Amino acid sequence: MTKGRLEAFSDGVIAIAITLLVLNLKVPVPGGTSLGHALARQWPSYLAYATSFLTIGVVWVNHHTMMRRLATVDHSILLLNMLLLMSIGVLPWTTAVLAEYLRNTSGQDLAAALYAGSFLVMSVIFYVLQRHTLLSTHLLREDVRRGADLDAIRRRARTGLLPYALATALAPLSAYVTIAICTVVVVFYALPSPLEAPAG
Amino acid sequence: MTKGRLEAFSDGVIAIAITLLVLNLKVPVPGGTSLGHALARQWPSYLAYATSFLTIGVVWVNHHTMMRRLATVDHSILLLNMLLLMSIGVLPWTTAVLAEYLRNTSGQDLAAALYAGSFLVMSVIFYVLQRHTLLSTHLLREDVRRGADLDAIRRRARTGLLPYALATALAPLSAYVTIAICTVVVVFYALPSPLEAPAG
Amino acid sequence: MTKGRLEAFSDGVIAIAITLLVLNLKVPVPGGTSLGHALARQWPSYLAYATSFLTIGVVWVNHHTMMRRLATVDHSILLLNMLLLMSIGVLPWTTAVLAEYLRNTSGQDLAAALYAGSFLVMSVIFYVLQRHTLLSTHLLREDVRRGADLDAIRRRARTGLLPYALATALAPLSAYVTIAICTVVVVFYALPSPLEAPAG
Amino acid sequence: MTKGRLEAFSDGVIAIAITLLVLNLKVPVPGGTSLGHALARQWPSYLAYATSFLTIGVVWVNHHTMMRRLATVDHSILLLNMLLLMSIGVLPWTTAVLAEYLRNTSGQDLAAALYAGSFLVMSVIFYVLQRHTLLSTHLLREDVRRGADLDAIRRRARTGLLPYALATALAPLSAYVTIAICTVVVVFYALPSPLEAPAG
Repeated sequence: MTKGRLEAFSDGVIAIAITLLVLNLKVPVPGGTSLGHALARQWPSYLAYATSFLTIGVVWVNHHTMMRRLATVDHSILLLNMLLLMSIGVLPWTTAVLAEYLRNTSGQDLAAALYAGSFLVMSVIFYVLQRHTLLSTHLLREDVRRGADLDAIRRRARTGLLPYALATALAPLSAYVTIAICTVVVVFYALPSPLEAPAG
Repeated sequence: MTKGRLEAFSDGVIAIAITLLVLNLKVPVPGGTSLGHALARQWPSYLAYATSFLTIGVVWVNHHTMMRRLATVDHSILLLNMLLLMSIGVLPWTTAVLAEYLRNTSGQDLAAALYAGSFLVMSVIFYVLQRHTLLSTHLLREDVRRGADLDAIRRRARTGLLPYALATALAPLSAYVTIAICTVVVVFYALPSPLEAPAG
Repeated sequence: MTKGRLEAFSDGVIAIAITLLVLNLKVPVPGGTSLGHALARQWPSYLAYATSFLTIGVVWVNHHTMMRRLATVDHSILLLNMLLLMSIGVLPWTTAVLAEYLRNTSGQDLAAALYAGSFLVMSVIFYVLQRHTLLSTHLLREDVRRGADLDAIRRRARTGLLPYALATALAPLSAYVTIAICTVVVVFYALPSPLEAPAG
Repeated sequence: MTKGRLEAFSDGVIAIAITLLVLNLKVPVPGGTSLGHALARQWPSYLAYATSFLTIGVVWVNHHTMMRRLATVDHSILLLNMLLLMSIGVLPWTTAVLAEYLRNTSGQDLAAALYAGSFLVMSVIFYVLQRHTLLSTHLLREDVRRGADLDAIRRRARTGLLPYALATALAPLSAYVTIAICTVVVVFYALPSPLEAPAG
């Protein structure tokens, strides 16, 4: 497996998953309440759409940064990457569940836990994959192997798991807190950091 | 982030969004009115499909022309491009809302405003992105930096916002005027211009 | 516009349209007739799926063969190619209409005419696009310009329009004849020809 | 047809099919049983999703390994590859049928047979395609032609058909045994083998 084709395939799956999110935006059935009212009531869909879109976008950028460090790939990377794609591919569904249940009296907390939990699972798989690439120095590019502070990258990646663990754990308390954390996290990651250029 | 992968990912999202438009074309339920009658009544769907398809197509061409000027990309381009893709990704939904409500007695104007408004938002983000690329001369290719009249390109891009602002503003007056403007604009852009080759 | 990016974008749209065809295959609702009976009654869906899939596949091969002759692209190619992609993008819908109405007592003929007619429109656009590329000798690759019998290619492309025109015209007579012609045509094109290698 | 474009198109179709699987995960309708209960009852959907996702992933890896051996492609490869893509493109549907009927009292066995049978058909086409590439030595890369034990590769590919034939045949006995075999097979293929590196 060449690294190039693995990247191209991953790009394809991520691009499709991010675009399929739009299928969760519903067209209100004519004849009921006014269109304006019906659209306004759908605000959880818009919030969930934007948060999921940007989260997948950030994962795509991070995925690219991680792959750029590699000179070649092994079977573990192939397998972990497939699991990562599966966890990304499932996000249009968890986003749809959240959009449907966020304003519901029952199921609200579980939907939020499922939403943040799917981000957590994705982040954990990403962390394991990244950890493997950083520890398998024979897979890294010559310049990366010497230059970068690989331990610092790994520590930072692990820290990134905390907000999603927190968001998932707080879902029984308040679904709104859960989604607020997810939204804040992605805005934080999307904005340029003074410490590092996420665009790598 | 290499420019090449940013372009490939953008191409992917745009290609998927443009192809997902077809999901808005409905199959009439058998048993009601005749198929011919049912298909004819769906004409707003066909108009919305064609207009949205060509609009996304024109954006794709313009996106390519813009990216070709660049030698490299920075974090702002990455972020603005992600917002642009999000605004494109949402078009199958605004197209579906328009198709559903254009012949409806109520909601017609709001659906048209949402439709033209989504094109306006997309155009504004595109303008901001293009403006950033033209002003960040260190990102431009050597030959572009010297040769082209960058101010003229920027002025022309800004002018392109006017029709969509007008179309959105006129929606309360007549939804048909709004969609007519959107259709005329894209036909105008799609046809070869005597002044410039849009194919870049 | 570089030829490479035009091809990549076209490949993307064609790959998505061909894969979206699967959404027309329905899952029978449990509880009614037996699953076996329900699946068997859906045979028009399977036939329409296979015919449309192979037809889009053949168009993709022909598209590639056509693009390979080109050294560069102009604005007309860009525009005609966008129209071609639009006519391909619409096929999952015409396929769905045929699958829904082929066994229906009314609408059967119109659905078949729409199905074959969409292939006809696609073929006409393809013919116009190919004609433009063959007549615009300054766009052709040096070796193609000298070597190939361009007139023969054009005549053969024009001949390819006849079966779809016939299939569309015969729809009022029998929807089954129409779809049979479409199926025979694509099997004929898919099988290797003793005269030419469609794989180019 | 260049090998590169055939691979890119195949990657596209496979990436789309694998991502469309998510559309089979349903959002429970609010108001009935609790969300937790409704989600738990959908477990066949999750199992079918994961098994199909990984199976398509393994096919993608094997497809890449097969294509890497080739120096060029002929018309038979083009045609067989199109049939392979068609058999992959149909998997979101057979997965959906299984997910819908696995817990149903009737249709369970047929749905399982359809599911395993679609894997069997895909595997048979893959085997025929691979057999053709291995026997057409003029299509192989120079180093592959000399180095590899092509007979061993072919025998191993043929052996891979057995589990799916068995899984399909056992469906009338127990749908659960059928899906268990499919799941075990893909886990077996996904895990690294001590004998060969599937990442090739």
